[in-house]
This record gives sequence, C-alpha cells and structure tokens, in this order.
Amino acid sequence: KINGPRLWASLMAMAEVGATARGGSRRLALSEEDAAGRELFGQWCREAGMSLSRDAVGNLFARRAGRDDALAPVMMGSHLDTQPEGGRFDGVYGVLAGLEVVRTLNDLGIETEKPLEIAVWTNEEGARFTPAMLGSAAFTGAMSLEAALASRDAEGISVAEALAACGQAGERPPGVPLDAYFEAHIEQGPVLEDNGKVIGVVTGGQAICWLDIQVEGQAAHAGTTPMPLRRDALFGAAEMIQGLERLAARFAPAGLVTVGQLEIAKSSRNTIPGDMRFTLDLRNPDDAVLARMEREARALIAAVAEGRGLAARVEPHWLSPATPFDADCVAAVRAAAQALGYSHQDIVSGAGHDAIHLARFCPTAMVFIPCVGGLSHNEAEDALPSDVAQGADVLLNAVLARAGR
Amino acid sequence: KINGPRLWASLMAMAEVGATARGGSRRLALSEEDAAGRELFGQWCREAGMSLSRDAVGNLFARRAGRDDALAPVMMGSHLDTQPEGGRFDGVYGVLAGLEVVRTLNDLGIETEKPLEIAVWTNEEGARFTPAMLGSAAFTGAMSLEAALASRDAEGISVAEALAACGQAGERPPGVPLDAYFEAHIEQGPVLEDNGKVIGVVTGGQAICWLDIQVEGQAAHAGTTPMPLRRDALFGAAEMIQGLERLAARFAPAGLVTVGQLEIAKSSRNTIPGDMRFTLDLRNPDDAVLARMEREARALIAAVAEGRGLAARVEPHWLSPATPFDADCVAAVRAAAQALGYSHQDIVSGAGHDAIHLARFCPTAMVFIPCVGGLSHNEAEDALPSDVAQGADVLLNAVLARAGR
Ligand SMILES: NC(=O)NCCC(=O)O
Ligand SMILES: NC(=O)NCCC(=O)O
Repeated sequence: KINGPRLWASLMAMAEVGATARGGSRRLALSEEDAAGRELFGQWCREAGMSLSRDAVGNLFARRAGRDDALAPVMMGSHLDTQPEGGRFDGVYGVLAGLEVVRTLNDLGIETEKPLEIAVWTNEEGARFTPAMLGSAAFTGAMSLEAALASRDAEGISVAEALAACGQAGERPPGVPLDAYFEAHIEQGPVLEDNGKVIGVVTGGQAICWLDIQVEGQAAHAGTTPMPLRRDALFGAAEMIQGLERLAARFAPAGLVTVGQLEIAKSSRNTIPGDMRFTLDLRNPDDAVLARMEREARALIAAVAEGRGLAARVEPHWLSPATPFDADCVAAVRAAAQALGYSHQDIVSGAGHDAIHLARFCPTAMVFIPCVGGLSHNEAEDALPSDVAQGADVLLNAVLARAGR
Repeated sequence: KINGPRLWASLMAMAEVGATARGGSRRLALSEEDAAGRELFGQWCREAGMSLSRDAVGNLFARRAGRDDALAPVMMGSHLDTQPEGGRFDGVYGVLAGLEVVRTLNDLGIETEKPLEIAVWTNEEGARFTPAMLGSAAFTGAMSLEAALASRDAEGISVAEALAACGQAGERPPGVPLDAYFEAHIEQGPVLEDNGKVIGVVTGGQAICWLDIQVEGQAAHAGTTPMPLRRDALFGAAEMIQGLERLAARFAPAGLVTVGQLEIAKSSRNTIPGDMRFTLDLRNPDDAVLARMEREARALIAAVAEGRGLAARVEPHWLSPATPFDADCVAAVRAAAQALGYSHQDIVSGAGHDAIHLARFCPTAMVFIPCVGGLSHNEAEDALPSDVAQGADVLLNAVLARAGR
C-alpha cells in the first residue's frame, strides 16, 4: 500500500501553483503556472531518483530504471494543466499517484523487471488549445506533430510559440514503445458516489463529437429596427440551443449535449447581434448513436436558421470514437481492487482522457475514484483522502503485476 | 441651400478615419481613431474661421461669432464616435451638416445675430463606455461629471484615463446657456424610406430601459454530468431569451427587445456554463408601457431561473424616459421643410440621441433623413446624397430662423 498522507500533501502542494480564490487551480496548458507545476513535479521526481525527458510537444516523462532497462516501460500518468477555473484533482491525481507508486517502491526497496515511467501529457483539457488530449494525440500519432504545434489559443498563440515561451519543448522522439499504460483519475461524474463504490474499473471511453456553429443574421440598431424586420442571430441561437437541450432529452440518459462557449462578434448593447458562434459537445457511449445525435443537431440548426432568414454553418472540430480498453490491463485493475478488498465496479469513462489515445497505441486501462458530488471542471472539485489513497493502492498493484518484481 | 457635394466629400473623408474592411468606420469613443476624427473636424472648423474649445468630459465645441456675441448661441451637433463596426453617417452626419451650414453662411457672407456652435459630444454610442450619450449627459447635468469620468470600458479603462490618453479633455465649463439645439441625424430605421419621405420632423424620443442580467448555475464537466443533474446557466439564458422574444411580440409593434451582449465567464468547450451575463435593451414610446415591459421581463427571467434551480439577478443599468421636443423648434424644422418644398412627416426617434439630453436643458429639435433599408449600427449603413443635402438645407433654414440674420 502507498503512503496516503504523503500523496495527499503532494496534491495540496500542487494545488497552490495557480491557486484560485475559491479553492481551485488555474494552470492553463503551457502557461507560466503550468510550467511552474511541471517544475515542482520534476523536482519531486529527481528527489525520488528518476530521470526526466521531454518530447517536441512538451510531454514530460520521468523514468525509474527497470532490472532489464532495455524492456519497454510500463507507463503511468495523466496531466497537470487545468480548466480556466479547474479543480485540484482532475489530471493531477493520475500524475501524483504515479509518483506515489514510485516513492512507495523506493521506500520498500522494490525493483521492477520493466522500467517505470510517469507521463505528464501536454494540453489535456482542451481549454487553451484544441483538441483536448493534444499531447497524447501527438505522442501516439493520432495527430501529426505539425498539426499539434500549429494549434492556436484564443489569442492566436500557437502551441509551438507557447512551448518556446515556457521552455517545455524537448528532444525525446515521440511514440517510443510501451509495455502498457495505466491512468488513475477522478471519475468527474456521480456514478461511483451514487453506487457507494470506491474503485471504478474503467472498461473504455465513450464517443465525443465537437462541432463549431456560426450563425449570421444582420446587425442593426436596437432602437429603430422593427421586430419583424430583424434577423437577430442571438434570438436564432437561443432557439437552436433550446432545441439542442430537447435533443439531449430524446437521447436520455446516455446522450449528453453541452454548449460551453458562445460569442457575439463585435457585440454592443444597442446593436442587434449579426454574427456569432457557439460550440457544441455531443457524447454517447455508442458511435452509431452519436452519429445520429450529430445528424439531428445539424438538421435542427439548419431548420431554425432557415425559418429565421439566418445563415448557419456547422463545422466539425473533433471526433473521438468510442474506445474499449485492453482486456488484460482492465483485468489487472479489477484483480488489484479485489485483492485489496476495495469496493469496485466496471464503468465507462464519460470524459476524454489521454488513456483514450494510448489505448490505440499500447495495452491500456484506467482506475477511477469518486469525486464529491460528481463535480469536476469546477473550483469546488473534491475527493476523499481515503478514496485517493485506495485508488493509488490499486494503481500500485496493477502496475506491479504488469512490470514484474 | 447648402453645397451638397462638399458635404458629401467631407462625410467620405471622415469615413476614412478608422475605415473598416466592409465600408464602415470604427472610431470607438476616445480611442486613437476617435481622436483622429476630431482632429480632422477641428482642422476643417479652423479653416472655416471657427474657434475651438473642449470641456472636462471631452465634448468639443466649434464657435462662429454672432453679431451680438454675448447672446446665448444656437447649437448644432451630434457625435463622431461609432459602434465597433459602425456606419459612415450615424452621428457624423449631424456634425458635418453643422459644419456645412457654417461653410454656406461663410460663402454667402451671412452673419447671424446669435453666435453659432457645433458640438461633438463624447461617447454617444454607448459601445465603449456606458451609458450612451455620456458627454451630453454630463454637459446638461443629467449625469455628474464625477460619474461620467468614472465610467469604465470592458478593459477597465475609465473615461478620465481615456481622455488623458488621447488628449481630449478641456477647460470649458459644462452647461453654458444655449438658445436652442438642433441635431440632424439619419433615421436609423425604415419609416421614412417606407413612406417615401425625405425629412423626418422629430417630435421627441422614445423611452429606453437598459438592464444587466446575471445567471448563475453550476459549472461541471460536459462529458460526465448526467443531463438531469445539470444546472446549465446557458440553457437557462436561452429559455429566457426565447421568452423575451415572445414578450416583444406581446408589445408589438411599438415594443422593442434586444439582447446585444452575452458572455459566459471562464468559458470552456467542455465545461457546462456556470456563470454568465447578458444585456437587455427594452424600448417603447410610452413610459408606462415600458415599465410594464420591464416588469414582465423581470418576472419571466425569475420564473425561468426558479424552474431550473439557477440564480438570476437583474440590475438596472440606464433608464431614459420618453422625451418630447420643444414645440417652437419642432415647428421651425417643419416650416423649413415646407418652405423648401421637401416631403416630410412627423416621427418619434427610436434611438437615443444627444438631443434627448439637450431637450431637458434648452429648446431642442431634430431633423431626420432616411438611411438605405433602414439599416444602422452596421458597416453597410448608407444614405442618398440628395437626402443628405436636403436634410442639411432644412437644418440651415431652421437654424437661421432661430439665430436671426
Ligand atoms: N478529463 C477531462 O476533463 N478531459 C477533457 C476532455 C473532455 O472533454 O472529456
Ligand atoms: N443614435 C444612436 O445610435 N444612439 C445610441 C443610443 C441608443 O441606443 O439609442
């Protein structure tokens, strides 16, 4: 078993980097705060006797040598970047649980046959640069390095420029062979808590579709333009968004619909919105059902635009198909939970994770623990110290089973 | 009659200052572009033999001496600031029509009994600083100088700071006595064009109510939070905005409803909106009806919030009551149109104008001309050269009648 209080103390120390007013963290990918968080993690790794390297997209790797150091490593990891007002556990937990596994092995003087690595993936959140999970996409070849480096934030700064500004680019080649990948993470939803289970044995991830919608009407004066003559892009968008909410109800309970961003171009209080955009996040565990959700969303948006004399354009932004995890790795997680006597259940991940990309690259599995109230992407995100410790125990035992003592 | 081609050439020259890609202008109040526009106007005024002064809120005045220069002046004017993507006529027309009146009097060697002044009011649009018509409000005492100087733009820059940065603050005391105020302006709506009239004899302005609405739900993860557990602030706002559109229909045709700005705080594509605000612009020619519109809007917003477990706060931002213009000044405009043989009709202004503040300070009237398609607050805003000339003819004759030859 790992050292729970030490892991908890590390989580709380990391939360201080970019701490927000209401108890969360703000470490947008490749920002100064993100670099400071990686620096702190790197220092802890060096103290644990690990060696550090980075690849061209800024993915950071800490390595503990194996007895046969030529073998492909067993990798743990997750991410240290956060949402604009993110919590203390999303991503951080998987990285620091990996560190705690290594610290525990050091304490106990245990060598592993295969080397161990901990990955800190770049820009997992998708909050600064899109798509989400950009670093693991570049590592596994799901995205070309050129495309990853060219992605730009809302200010027009590219990943390449941000990497240079915060000194996170390295020389390690991408996609080195891995024996397996294990990621511990908070569930970010309410299922485990509702069911009273501590360990989620993650069998795979659901499908995600991101779309960009642009709506064009006609900007005009708010005080002089008769209502029937208006082509108000926002009134149109409001009707679309109401329709999208009803669409979610038709695909209940598994279908999820979120409009996370909406922006009126050149907006003014007394000008009728003429040009605006919003984002759409559609999810379903079943690829075919997700495709139907997308078709219906497109039809609905087109119909509202048509009825109001607006022009609407729907552009695909990102599509991540449903991804099953490796049966052996999933079994290793389940067996570890069972052996430790921890309550557990199988679960499908609602969120995207770096493990989704890794699953198409090497045998992969994830360990979930509950988060309080199922709340994530919120400063108030929280987890119980006992759950945090038990999840890391499961990670330790699954990794040991795979890496060999 | 004035010199139509000269007036048109001045309008087109001013439009070059802050010209936008699609034929409009961008001169946000007290920006570099606004200062450059004022500089160009000032140069033209000096060439026309006028003297310049500014008051503490940056209102700019050009003066042509009267035969009895101790008499209170007859003032013309409007504004040179624009919407973020504004047109070439909104405001500019009233300022340059005033200049054309003076140039014409110079050409004809006509002196007036009373002095003439042309005002360029600061921040009429309300697009950078709020409220709209801030400069004329400070001049007439509708707003204290302290409050006007303390208004801040979206970046947090105050009027006082912007004035200092672009060198537009002056020493002239506010609220000097005026004999009368005449403002020429494009209608910014479709009424004159629809009725085939060239001159709008403006009898007053309608009532305007600006509200700020904040909606709070709970930020949470877009991929893991079941739909029934969500408190999505944007889904709530979409329902409110749909309800507000229906509210406008209940107050048709005179009631106008616009949501010009909407912002999700700390937005992210995969985070359910937890905190957002939008603006509401309600208008009606009748104060009592506008008050009823406001009450119904508030009730509707509260009911949607209640039904969805959201918190909504509605704050008053600005209220401008319905304002009748001075009967004598209105009659002078009507008589000028009649004498010139120009088609005309009485009309109520849908937009706020500096003349609304002046009307509570001295005898005031306005001259409207049509704009193409009724379109304003849009780069494509346009007016016919013949209408532009005829409106300035009416201004010339109304002002002459009041100022005495
Ligand atoms: N775990 C997580 O928040 N990932 C971001 C990608 C997503 O939107 O699911
Ligand atoms: N004329 C004009 O556009 N004024 C701005 C104030 C308003 O919103 O009516």
